[in-house]
Amino acid sequence: MAVGLTDLPDLHPVAGVRLGVASAGVRKPGRTDLMLLEVARGSAVAAVFTRNAFCAAPVVVAREHLERSAPRLLLVNSGNANAGTGGAGLEAARACCRALAEAVGCRPEEVLPFSTGVIGEPLPVERIVAALGSALADLSEDGWGDAARAIMTTDTVPKGISRRVVLDGRPVTVTGIAKGAGMIRPDMATMLCYVATDAWVAPALLQRCLEGAVERSFNRITVDGDTSTNDACVVAATGGAGVRLEEDDERLRTFATALEEVCTHLAHAIVRDGEGATKFVTVTVEGGASRAECLQAAYAIAHSPLVKTALFASDPNWGRILAAVGRAGIPDLDVGRIDIYLGDVRIVRSGGRDPDYTEERGQAVMQREEIAIGVDLGRGPYVETVWTTDLSFDYVRINAEYRT
Amino acid sequence: MAVGLTDLPDLHPVAGVRLGVASAGVRKPGRTDLMLLEVARGSAVAAVFTRNAFCAAPVVVAREHLERSAPRLLLVNSGNANAGTGGAGLEAARACCRALAEAVGCRPEEVLPFSTGVIGEPLPVERIVAALGSALADLSEDGWGDAARAIMTTDTVPKGISRRVVLDGRPVTVTGIAKGAGMIRPDMATMLCYVATDAWVAPALLQRCLEGAVERSFNRITVDGDTSTNDACVVAATGGAGVRLEEDDERLRTFATALEEVCTHLAHAIVRDGEGATKFVTVTVEGGASRAECLQAAYAIAHSPLVKTALFASDPNWGRILAAVGRAGIPDLDVGRIDIYLGDVRIVRSGGRDPDYTEERGQAVMQREEIAIGVDLGRGPYVETVWTTDLSFDYVRINAEYRT
Repeated sequence: MAVGLTDLPDLHPVAGVRLGVASAGVRKPGRTDLMLLEVARGSAVAAVFTRNAFCAAPVVVAREHLERSAPRLLLVNSGNANAGTGGAGLEAARACCRALAEAVGCRPEEVLPFSTGVIGEPLPVERIVAALGSALADLSEDGWGDAARAIMTTDTVPKGISRRVVLDGRPVTVTGIAKGAGMIRPDMATMLCYVATDAWVAPALLQRCLEGAVERSFNRITVDGDTSTNDACVVAATGGAGVRLEEDDERLRTFATALEEVCTHLAHAIVRDGEGATKFVTVTVEGGASRAECLQAAYAIAHSPLVKTALFASDPNWGRILAAVGRAGIPDLDVGRIDIYLGDVRIVRSGGRDPDYTEERGQAVMQREEIAIGVDLGRGPYVETVWTTDLSFDYVRINAEYRT
Repeated sequence: MAVGLTDLPDLHPVAGVRLGVASAGVRKPGRTDLMLLEVARGSAVAAVFTRNAFCAAPVVVAREHLERSAPRLLLVNSGNANAGTGGAGLEAARACCRALAEAVGCRPEEVLPFSTGVIGEPLPVERIVAALGSALADLSEDGWGDAARAIMTTDTVPKGISRRVVLDGRPVTVTGIAKGAGMIRPDMATMLCYVATDAWVAPALLQRCLEGAVERSFNRITVDGDTSTNDACVVAATGGAGVRLEEDDERLRTFATALEEVCTHLAHAIVRDGEGATKFVTVTVEGGASRAECLQAAYAIAHSPLVKTALFASDPNWGRILAAVGRAGIPDLDVGRIDIYLGDVRIVRSGGRDPDYTEERGQAVMQREEIAIGVDLGRGPYVETVWTTDLSFDYVRINAEYRT
């Protein structure tokens, strides 16, 4: 189902991080739907959350807790998003944190709660609390794979990746897992991502590294333009590898690159597993006068249902790409300077059909499972890339039938 | 197929306007695909065109001609959009205008060209020119119905409407026709609209009336957010009724209202005939601090594939509506003040599920063919309405299979 995704690769443990799972019966009995991620005392934790004004109760509580103290435990449930649940939802999230804090002997604000699943249903606090002991007993440095599976909702495959870099002659690991089938399902709380490293990076610096990585990975993917009430991406730096990274340090750049690679892999995995996806599509817009206008054009293409249905049909319908660029709202766009490519085939030259273009050549590119759409605006030095999928019958089926 | 649309109503002739059609074999032999609309000398003509930076050759030429002289003839072909055709396309549009001007003895710039159909194919100028005589011979004040059919592309029904108002004791007619299956098909040159009245309104004033009417009708509909390279809406005022309308005139307001009603009817007809549409959906956002933010929220809902697939499934999935409002980008949105309605059923109160709401009541509304979604932002006096459709299997089928 997922485009070009195989099973989980080896996920290397991160010194100072343990993970455990349990069955709480949040939505369906028997399913592993609870996940704990424990970070060693003294670790730095950074996070980014959904920009949706309707953010779910756990997002509100996690933000509060993160401001007040360094987290020790992340508590994640799938099956219920605890979103659109008002004051009772906030209290439910806090109750889960209190119960876990009591069980391990830390303060409630040292627990960050996360939920993903159906919107608008009360969180079954008692069932979650009852399963905490079993999840705690399961904590292990080798728990990444099980954790990746426990946070899945409509994902068809678990998603995870490890990178290792050598800094000061010492191996440093960055391991991450994510769930999500496409930035696209507000009522299934789209995307959660947990990354850890055994390097040490101070919280403010770690936050900056994370924001940069997320901006160029999770913030560059789209399946249908909808964003969730529950999205969150968290990174923990334990220092277990004995390497301390400082600002303006060449080693920090090496680490930041590894973090971005992990985030990019996970972001691509979410698109590849996008609902109904039959294609993995890279849209690159170069020659822009600003990054912003490159993104405008790229998203106009990536969000266009007409482009997406043409991708599904493997139809090299370049008129739809051209029209999407034209309506992107770029000021004073000179269409006479625009080139458009499918893979390495130029389909539009200087705003018109390339005289050398043939339908057969376009067709050959469109038939592939991985397709690159390139646009050169011909007016500046900037370039941006976003990733998306096609729009298939299955997308409609999955989203029309989801609750029935 | 089209939601709540029946056949054409009676279209009243407009004194000073004649219409004729012919078969030019633009794309397929035998199809009536050429339409002429002739306006009496001395008429005022106003027009609005697509804002897409990639506008088609006929749009460029029509704009040029309109700046230079008062149009006598509109020349419309379906089957070929003459878009993405570069310099050759401009010359093709001009050649058609020259041939028609020669045939009737006017200047080429008194002809406005319009094309709708496939993008990127050369316009068959010779076949169009060869059919002009037959279209001219067909000119008649009663030609509105045939004209409405001649401009159709993937429309399943012809679209037209007449309004009559009495000004100074004299009947004034406003008649309009349109083609389009949803503001949605750049490669089928989505929307063309031709309206005429026998009132007399000076060109600048007519332009203002048209812009106001279009802003509240055609600019408030969406099927999938794509806009076309060829969209155009033209109104002619012949003065045939012997009524002259001036600025700041109560009668002008009556006329402007009739014009807006005609445009709104035609805009709704385009949505009702939207590709794959099974629902006609009215999205009203009130309580905004500005018109702009009401529109932002309304379009976020109307463009959301998740909301649209839920509408197709008749699923009262209020979480998706709530999440769409949340991601609309309205600054400092207090979600605790937001109410959301399906028809007259309140589903969200003060940002959370209405305690009195039941799935059954929401389901009853969603099962209808015509659905109203209402949002109260609770922070100001402004209100805006947009119209849209659901997203169905047929939308994907039509757009995936269109060229095959």
